[in-house]
Amino acid sequence: MKQLLAVDWGTTSLRGALLDGTGSVTHERSSANGLLNVRAGGFAEVLEAEFGDWLRVPGTLCLMAGMVGSKQGWQEAPYCASPAGLAEVAQHLTWIERTGRQISQRIAVVPGMSCENEGVPDVMRGEETQVFGALQLLGMQEGVFVLPGTHSKWVRVQAGRIEGLATFMTGEFYALLRQHSILARTLPAVDDELDGAAFDEGVALALRRGSLLGTAFSVRTLSLFARKSAQSLPSYLSGLVIGEELRAQSLGGVEHVVLIGSDTLTQRYARALAQCRVGAHSIGALATWRGLWAIAQTLESR
Amino acid sequence: MKQLLAVDWGTTSLRGALLDGTGSVTHERSSANGLLNVRAGGFAEVLEAEFGDWLRVPGTLCLMAGMVGSKQGWQEAPYCASPAGLAEVAQHLTWIERTGRQISQRIAVVPGMSCENEGVPDVMRGEETQVFGALQLLGMQEGVFVLPGTHSKWVRVQAGRIEGLATFMTGEFYALLRQHSILARTLPAVDDELDGAAFDEGVALALRRGSLLGTAFSVRTLSLFARKSAQSLPSYLSGLVIGEELRAQSLGGVEHVVLIGSDTLTQRYARALAQCRVGAHSIGALATWRGLWAIAQTLESR
Repeated sequence: MKQLLAVDWGTTSLRGALLDGTGSVTHERSSANGLLNVRAGGFAEVLEAEFGDWLRVPGTLCLMAGMVGSKQGWQEAPYCASPAGLAEVAQHLTWIERTGRQISQRIAVVPGMSCENEGVPDVMRGEETQVFGALQLLGMQEGVFVLPGTHSKWVRVQAGRIEGLATFMTGEFYALLRQHSILARTLPAVDDELDGAAFDEGVALALRRGSLLGTAFSVRTLSLFARKSAQSLPSYLSGLVIGEELRAQSLGGVEHVVLIGSDTLTQRYARALAQCRVGAHSIGALATWRGLWAIAQTLESR
Repeated sequence: MKQLLAVDWGTTSLRGALLDGTGSVTHERSSANGLLNVRAGGFAEVLEAEFGDWLRVPGTLCLMAGMVGSKQGWQEAPYCASPAGLAEVAQHLTWIERTGRQISQRIAVVPGMSCENEGVPDVMRGEETQVFGALQLLGMQEGVFVLPGTHSKWVRVQAGRIEGLATFMTGEFYALLRQHSILARTLPAVDDELDGAAFDEGVALALRRGSLLGTAFSVRTLSLFARKSAQSLPSYLSGLVIGEELRAQSLGGVEHVVLIGSDTLTQRYARALAQCRVGAHSIGALATWRGLWAIAQTLESR
């Protein structure tokens, strides 16, 4: 492989990076051409428009992760069942047929990963690649990886393989409560910067109590009795939902986790985890590129 | 007191009952004139329009419970702090001044009740009256009372006094997930009748797992892998949220509870409680009238 075009194609955005033969990122590009902005059958065209100059270099491999492999994406890439490592993922790539087109590079979609938790399935798409990247970047073979977001993923790794995962709809619950619930009337229209003390109080209550169904109502009552300023309430609510996510984990014996995501979110999670006496180090967007690079390497070495 | 006009004035509806000198309900009326449909300063007018004929009978006492005593209501009736019984509630009635009007009956608003749970306030308005009514109807002096709804209330009673309460935003979370979350895409437009087996599965998962943040995602994955029919998913989701409410309780040592509410809801809760080996008996709208009657009796006997 001369070079790798690493693509992270999600619902709302399309990001790509060019990695040279040593795995170094030489260029990055991004656009709003996520799945929602691509017409049916238009994926090849969009890829070419965005990255045609890179793709045309002979010997380029293109690997794509994310929702591009879902039913709503370019081509469905069936989930790879966990436990699974890089070998299984490289084996289950979905190759895209591009007969009759000028560009004849090798293009594949990385499968998402599924698992069974007590008879109930769980899935992720894209996060598996980030975890493989983080493992390589940090030189780790095992650990707990947390990918905060609309749907947070907790991923357990042993011996370099993903053993299982669990999804928490934390970001989505925050948005629902923030925008559509009775609490929205109490909250200011715009979120200020994080109020650390209010956030910590929210985390603490969530860790003590049994359910967000109950703790969420405290946003209303604390406001009703003027015990908290309206400006501090979004931070408090953020603490409640993130604290709830932590409370639901089995963190006994876990001394630290790896957080993968944007600084804004990983900083909040690190702060909340500190209350559980769990350390955290954070890693950003590079994890995706490095994960796709690790899959490419596995592919080449077969 | 010759007769009692018992009024349940909520956000979306206005209900009233006439009780004779023995406490028997002789007439009932209801309308959509809840707080949302009453203009500022228009409460006296609406009460007279709805119940003027009953109010004009000399010696009539009128007691009103519900959101009519909130800041958005007729006149704010400050919360009565728990622990509190009928005596405290009767003492903290907010009497309405009606100088210069033709109807000069005694009219009062029943206070809501507040409590502190580990430094966080909780409140209810109207439910305290239903609990007092249930106590009298069932000849009880202690127990756990559950009032399911948009915001479910769990009320603990000892020696005839309300010791504390806890709110769970169960009905509201169901509506948020049903209408505004990613799960809405998976769910059919209209709820069918309850699918008992799917409901039970939802309850069971909620009782086993740590948080609705996690279990809610199973609505999506079970659908993704075609393990459940779309028609059964609303019942399953209902089981998840009600099960979550039960999981959050300390039900150790509780053998049965009293459910107060509509048949549709109390039947679901009774079904879910059975999985926790907790029995339930249910009581309907009569609880409010009997609760206001109990407050009136306390008032008269002072």
